[in-house]
Amino acid sequence: MNSKNKLILALDFGGTKHAAAIVHSGDRKWQKGRRALSPPFAGATVDREIMRSLIHQLLQGEKPGAIGVSFGGPVDATTGTVRLSHHVPGWENTPLRELLETEYGAPVRVDNDANVAALGEYRFGAGKGYESMFYITISTGVGGGWILNGRPWRGADGMAGEIGHIVVDPEGPKCLCGKRGCVERFASGPYIAQSAQQFLQQQPYRGEILRNLAANNLSEITAQLVSKAADQGDDIASEVLEVAGWALGVGIGNVANLINPQLFVLGGGVTKAGAKFWSAVRRVARKTALPEVNFEIVPAALSDEAPLWGAVALAEDLL
Amino acid sequence: MNSKNKLILALDFGGTKHAAAIVHSGDRKWQKGRRALSPPFAGATVDREIMRSLIHQLLQGEKPGAIGVSFGGPVDATTGTVRLSHHVPGWENTPLRELLETEYGAPVRVDNDANVAALGEYRFGAGKGYESMFYITISTGVGGGWILNGRPWRGADGMAGEIGHIVVDPEGPKCLCGKRGCVERFASGPYIAQSAQQFLQQQPYRGEILRNLAANNLSEITAQLVSKAADQGDDIASEVLEVAGWALGVGIGNVANLINPQLFVLGGGVTKAGAKFWSAVRRVARKTALPEVNFEIVPAALSDEAPLWGAVALAEDLL
Repeated sequence: MNSKNKLILALDFGGTKHAAAIVHSGDRKWQKGRRALSPPFAGATVDREIMRSLIHQLLQGEKPGAIGVSFGGPVDATTGTVRLSHHVPGWENTPLRELLETEYGAPVRVDNDANVAALGEYRFGAGKGYESMFYITISTGVGGGWILNGRPWRGADGMAGEIGHIVVDPEGPKCLCGKRGCVERFASGPYIAQSAQQFLQQQPYRGEILRNLAANNLSEITAQLVSKAADQGDDIASEVLEVAGWALGVGIGNVANLINPQLFVLGGGVTKAGAKFWSAVRRVARKTALPEVNFEIVPAALSDEAPLWGAVALAEDLL
Repeated sequence: MNSKNKLILALDFGGTKHAAAIVHSGDRKWQKGRRALSPPFAGATVDREIMRSLIHQLLQGEKPGAIGVSFGGPVDATTGTVRLSHHVPGWENTPLRELLETEYGAPVRVDNDANVAALGEYRFGAGKGYESMFYITISTGVGGGWILNGRPWRGADGMAGEIGHIVVDPEGPKCLCGKRGCVERFASGPYIAQSAQQFLQQQPYRGEILRNLAANNLSEITAQLVSKAADQGDDIASEVLEVAGWALGVGIGNVANLINPQLFVLGGGVTKAGAKFWSAVRRVARKTALPEVNFEIVPAALSDEAPLWGAVALAEDLL
């Protein structure tokens, strides 16, 4: 095999952000990378065109030896077919692997972002040297990907890892999925922002720091702003993050009792919420798990690049 | 290998009940079997003596080719060392595999009862032909054992499967483990009986059928009696079983979202609680799982013999 065939192309189709990068197999530094945002109301065709353009800039006529793809939505990893995107219309039943194989003449593997990010952290990041881990992304949604016995575990329908939709409080507020009290309903970025907004409306004499940070425009509040306010000692922001950490902690403790993995790796924007959030997660997870069940909870090492590095791992297995 | 070496000895050390049986490898009918109860306040030494006597009656001088053991408590399956029994004192750090190998001169494999029963159902019972299943026993306690990719999954500390201690209601009643609202706190036999007793005390004008069945002696009420009363239309008994089914259903739905196995197999005394219990379990599990997550929930096929048949599977792998 000549060196040209060892060029790996890694692709990350997100809900609104897309990324592509190339690396020589075995290297742990990108040769080149490109990112782009979708225009508002883009569909699958536009997103594929954006990605084609990123790839064109990277490859400049070179041929990749293998392609790994992270996709932000349910995927049939066996066939490489996208089932749908929850954010972008037009992806239903797209044979993404086949399309890319035809276009670039190289073997392709496709999986959903949580599974791919889990693989990235396992092979190159916080999970290196472990045998069993659960990667959890806490961002716009809350999802996860499994490594068991050193290999991805996707479940019978490729649906494993949905920690965002396990119920931790049957009397809790209603989640988008229709149930009450899902982990995601307390811990995702948008729901953290929404809870803070509601508390501020209901309790006019509290949350001064957060109000000031938002210039009194409650609809401007984001999870990031809640984190910032909590860092500065805001009472409502701290409460909201405490509840988010509690929900995720119960979820993690339950998962520890059920599957007993060595390691939990947490990634996604909300994990940057600071020390209060992390200590709530760790304290509640430890309390929820049985005393005999051991585990560590650590931050993701690869941050936003976990899906791209996971795509490299997928592709390296094809070389 | 001669035919004598293919004789399998299967042992089941329970909390109070013990069983031993022999079978020729490949056969699916026991050659002989024996059962015995522990005397009250027995310890590990007495239980091992009881088992030795059962084995003696079965083998009558014959030598087994391999021995499989189900133990009712945490086990280090790699070394075959019992960590402890939650019911019987004196088992702490007993090298059970070593003891049996020395005594009977045959290779031995030991694992905890939930894992062994899961293996039994997978190899010979309700799980035949599936790749991924979760076996749940609902009895004095609530526990489970995993089969993933056609192999047992025990977790990093051998603690996987503890569905009894995942929290389904953080405001719920206190469980023996110290937390509130565990699955076991609602669904185990003793807690079903306890809940029924409490409701009858609090609501003197309800539960007539159950009261009559217990001859008004509330302390006599068992989960079995609650099931019987529910079958006859008792209001309180039906409510208690509905709550038990709800808790188990939430637990199963959560597990489906997390691991997405093909099949749930339910065994143990409480699963004989009748149609109301089963329909609550199935309805709530389906509602708790995401719509894209498919699974079946079926009764165990091997009943009380699941651990013994699982022990046969463990032993057959040694031949």
